[in-house]
Amino acid sequence: RRHHPDTVMWDLPFLPFCALLGILGFVCVAFVSAWCQYWRGGFALDGSTRTFNWHPVLMVTGMMVLYGAAALVYRLPPAWTGPKLPWKLLHGALALAAFTLAVLGLAAVFHFHNVQGTPNMYSLHSWLGLATVLLFSCQWLAGFSAFLLPWAPAWLRALYKPLHVFFGSTILMLSMASCLSGINEKLFFSLKNGTTEYKLLPPEAVFANTLGLLILLFGVLVLGALARPSWKRPDADSPDTRQ
Amino acid sequence: RRHHPDTVMWDLPFLPFCALLGILGFVCVAFVSAWCQYWRGGFALDGSTRTFNWHPVLMVTGMMVLYGAAALVYRLPPAWTGPKLPWKLLHGALALAAFTLAVLGLAAVFHFHNVQGTPNMYSLHSWLGLATVLLFSCQWLAGFSAFLLPWAPAWLRALYKPLHVFFGSTILMLSMASCLSGINEKLFFSLKNGTTEYKLLPPEAVFANTLGLLILLFGVLVLGALARPSWKRPDADSPDTRQ
Repeated sequence: RRHHPDTVMWDLPFLPFCALLGILGFVCVAFVSAWCQYWRGGFALDGSTRTFNWHPVLMVTGMMVLYGAAALVYRLPPAWTGPKLPWKLLHGALALAAFTLAVLGLAAVFHFHNVQGTPNMYSLHSWLGLATVLLFSCQWLAGFSAFLLPWAPAWLRALYKPLHVFFGSTILMLSMASCLSGINEKLFFSLKNGTTEYKLLPPEAVFANTLGLLILLFGVLVLGALARPSWKRPDADSPDTRQ
Repeated sequence: RRHHPDTVMWDLPFLPFCALLGILGFVCVAFVSAWCQYWRGGFALDGSTRTFNWHPVLMVTGMMVLYGAAALVYRLPPAWTGPKLPWKLLHGALALAAFTLAVLGLAAVFHFHNVQGTPNMYSLHSWLGLATVLLFSCQWLAGFSAFLLPWAPAWLRALYKPLHVFFGSTILMLSMASCLSGINEKLFFSLKNGTTEYKLLPPEAVFANTLGLLILLFGVLVLGALARPSWKRPDADSPDTRQ
């Protein structure tokens, strides 16, 4: 595979970059958990705000970190050679785990709203977030049907693959925008009174704003890694896409 | 230039797609203007919320629509042949116009905050938005210095170009996330009481949420167009990058 002359000078090794991404993903999960545990009262299943707290943790873990890991599977150099099926299974399993956490994260916020008598699905954050998870469910089902079930013909796989790749990055972008609008919204809800007002920038606000920027950095780095030509699996159109 | 076998079956003509994008960009500007005019009291320079109203209009027009137009200049088939300098000038001029509107949009919100005695730069939206505009200013200056001033050597241009391309898409993503978090935040600020409460989903909320989704669609389509291999200018490393 020909490397584009423009990009060859910035060739980075994928695995150290991937390790950095892993650390950053871990830091994002640690930050969102610490925010909910330390400032927002921790976790429970009682329909209180402590039930809501599962929502940011599960969405960041599922729709950003696990989703990012799933998206990058084919960029691992060992996935470039040998049979493709194990890597497909890993990709699909990680995506399914991400989707499962996302559904649990949605269940947490719907349960919280229903117990509190708050309407569901009115804010732009909720529209954006639900659209993201619905697109993800279509993406997973279509990917499973086209690439893992044995009966899809090769021409259909070849036709669908660029769409799957495009929506893969798009859904991650929507996840980022959903996470950022959600953190912003939650801080306006929570930091309303006296000395903890959001506009006074208390420590919680600095911490959660920083979480937002870390999520952004993680997402941008994953999208950058996905877009790098030299990290793409060679022979994308090889016969084993028919496997 | 070789078309990737995977993508050739989805080849769309660029110009009709571009016309669609132009219409969508126009609709975004019309929606954000109508929102501020009809529901938020219109525009003025008196430091009231009518000064603030310039902020969403200028940011959407500058950082989404004009920015998107600037980013797509090299995808126009006429830009593929002949001297590159006129297209570089067009790209730089559109980006400068986008940046100018963004700075005016920031001035509107800072002026509004200062007159009202509200602190600046506390919300995640503000951190994200300012980071986006600061990155954009670096991108514009570096692009101008490397590609328009005559003294940058060819190796520096070749080295910087993939970074410029990467940050070009990244800044647009950050713009989208900034717009969406800002619209969400503004609706929580504005729709607080009685029958217009945001959670009751009054017509303004449906309208502005829809604006958010249209901005998202515009951004995703621009990013998709930028990423399409078959729409990229051939011979990116041709001698005229030294022009």
